[in-house]
Amino acid sequence: MKAEELDTPALLVDLERLQSNLERMSALAAEHGVTLRPHTKTHKSPEIARMQLEAGAVGITCAKLGEAEVMAAGGCDDILIANQIIGEAKYRRLLPLARKARVCVAVDSAFGAESLNAALEAAGQQLDVVIEINCGQNRAGVLPGEEALELARHVQQLSRLRLRGLMTHGGHAYNQTTPEGIERVGLAEGRVMVETAELLRSHGIPVETVSVGSSPAARYCARVEGVTEIRPGTYVFNDLTQVELGACRLQDCALTVLATVTSRPARDRVVLDAGKKALTSDPAGRTGRNPGYGFLPERNVWVARLSEEHAVLDTKTEFHIGEKVRIVPNHACVVVNMFDEMYGLRGDEVERIFRVEGRGKMQ
Amino acid sequence: MKAEELDTPALLVDLERLQSNLERMSALAAEHGVTLRPHTKTHKSPEIARMQLEAGAVGITCAKLGEAEVMAAGGCDDILIANQIIGEAKYRRLLPLARKARVCVAVDSAFGAESLNAALEAAGQQLDVVIEINCGQNRAGVLPGEEALELARHVQQLSRLRLRGLMTHGGHAYNQTTPEGIERVGLAEGRVMVETAELLRSHGIPVETVSVGSSPAARYCARVEGVTEIRPGTYVFNDLTQVELGACRLQDCALTVLATVTSRPARDRVVLDAGKKALTSDPAGRTGRNPGYGFLPERNVWVARLSEEHAVLDTKTEFHIGEKVRIVPNHACVVVNMFDEMYGLRGDEVERIFRVEGRGKMQ
Repeated sequence: MKAEELDTPALLVDLERLQSNLERMSALAAEHGVTLRPHTKTHKSPEIARMQLEAGAVGITCAKLGEAEVMAAGGCDDILIANQIIGEAKYRRLLPLARKARVCVAVDSAFGAESLNAALEAAGQQLDVVIEINCGQNRAGVLPGEEALELARHVQQLSRLRLRGLMTHGGHAYNQTTPEGIERVGLAEGRVMVETAELLRSHGIPVETVSVGSSPAARYCARVEGVTEIRPGTYVFNDLTQVELGACRLQDCALTVLATVTSRPARDRVVLDAGKKALTSDPAGRTGRNPGYGFLPERNVWVARLSEEHAVLDTKTEFHIGEKVRIVPNHACVVVNMFDEMYGLRGDEVERIFRVEGRGKMQ
Repeated sequence: MKAEELDTPALLVDLERLQSNLERMSALAAEHGVTLRPHTKTHKSPEIARMQLEAGAVGITCAKLGEAEVMAAGGCDDILIANQIIGEAKYRRLLPLARKARVCVAVDSAFGAESLNAALEAAGQQLDVVIEINCGQNRAGVLPGEEALELARHVQQLSRLRLRGLMTHGGHAYNQTTPEGIERVGLAEGRVMVETAELLRSHGIPVETVSVGSSPAARYCARVEGVTEIRPGTYVFNDLTQVELGACRLQDCALTVLATVTSRPARDRVVLDAGKKALTSDPAGRTGRNPGYGFLPERNVWVARLSEEHAVLDTKTEFHIGEKVRIVPNHACVVVNMFDEMYGLRGDEVERIFRVEGRGKMQ
């Protein structure tokens, strides 16, 4: 079946671009001597996770327990949940999962570490943890330096937790407006993590893993001596935000939304059948170079506005009702989360279908 | 089971508020002598659609064919698809649907009307249509007046289409910053539709239905003599945008996201486990009175920022890790679309579960 025969809106993945993206990130990790643990939140597909592992990833990263369960069931046996897991309902699922796969979770509080330890104690299990560090995004995580040392000491006293090391996510890279800004954030992210690892080691605390990175900053963090692991996610598909930040080229974007022109109500306006419930209202980055909610590379037109089920293009370019078009989205990770499946294309031919199995696994 | 025993993030519906919202809109329609055809895009649940019908709605509105199929299977037998249905793949599903239920679709182009007519011709079927009018939102729809008349004449010549009347959606009500602005938009929406209906009638074209309205403007459109039907959607749950626009009170918001405090990394920062993949990044309205991405009424705190799986509160208020909180979202319709089920609460007790059956029915 040809892509253009699919009904719309539909999610398309260019398999050649996907493979190139996988290989490029694996090569980057190899070049800098770090392991690659890609974040699977972007695709939520165990099949694509396995492609990442085949391309050299050492394991995977998940955003939440429900996604980790899906990935473990799909054959991934080394999973970092890069988030705090809190509450008895989740411990009841985390513990069995950790018996099936090599699982590690993030902690950023004494309370969180103690609660997890108590659940493990009751079950007679042990679990690897990493301490989450706030390297500047100001989301979760303890501060680098003394605050991290204090929590590390506390974790070491908890008999059921094994401290594997440190992790951070320099999400503030996305607030940058120049490649130089991202380089600065990425290098600082790596350095502050290595310094904190050294501080812990100087107090006799072993730190095996120093795990960092977002897709745009991965190439900079990975350069810092002492960083051991990168965890980019979006690189697998790329999107307009990555293009805007200089992390990839437009022709590296593997994910598009196929849409149909449903209305041509004015000479300067075109309506497509992909709205917020397909593209999401995630905005562009902060460079000012992306004026919309998606881009049609074959037509050189931006999506100007979105309703729930409509995309509006302000253009006088010729479009005819019924025509199908491809939209590169602002943010791949949230767009995939709208769909139940992705059509993998070889050229224009549908070669395979990826189920977004992790979608809807909210808890 | 108590709401607070649910794992998070979870979607909660206050059944008493839901019922009040249904009754209030039914009363408004009755008061003004118009029929109510609620837009089910907000809940995507046939069960809630049936509650709307029991509360007096004459039929329902859907945004797309896939949702209409779900609603028909769930017992709704009078459905307006308030959108253009374009393409053979969709006609192959629309025609059987129209044999099972009373279906009407919107048309806004000669090409769209002709294509639909050809498909009906081949199947030996007829279908009701309404002409979509652009009353100022500048999305789809022909212009009121002469442009509408021209398309109506064209539709009348197509043997398989029965012209039921006119429809519009005054979505530009959401751009207003005062109740007076919404009143102005709502009244203008009603008037322009009635004028266009009169124009068609003066040319011998019968117009049975004059269908209008969004949740904030419904009360104003409905007042205009000659309007026959309103199609509000969000009123069923309400949300912060409706509060901001003066369309409801905060205590009329029936939908909340239950979330857990997973991190308290600084004295002035709290992290919850509900991010963009639960609340979406839909922004507030334009009044400047909503500074965030959700509101915690029990704690009087706004959600300041979202990542995919984190909400960040900038607050020094006491929160403890593991505590569960309820968030009223900016936009109910897109939040429901993130979840597979909603927990219906009587007080704090889970009384029933609504499946979001229309979610993921993209086409």
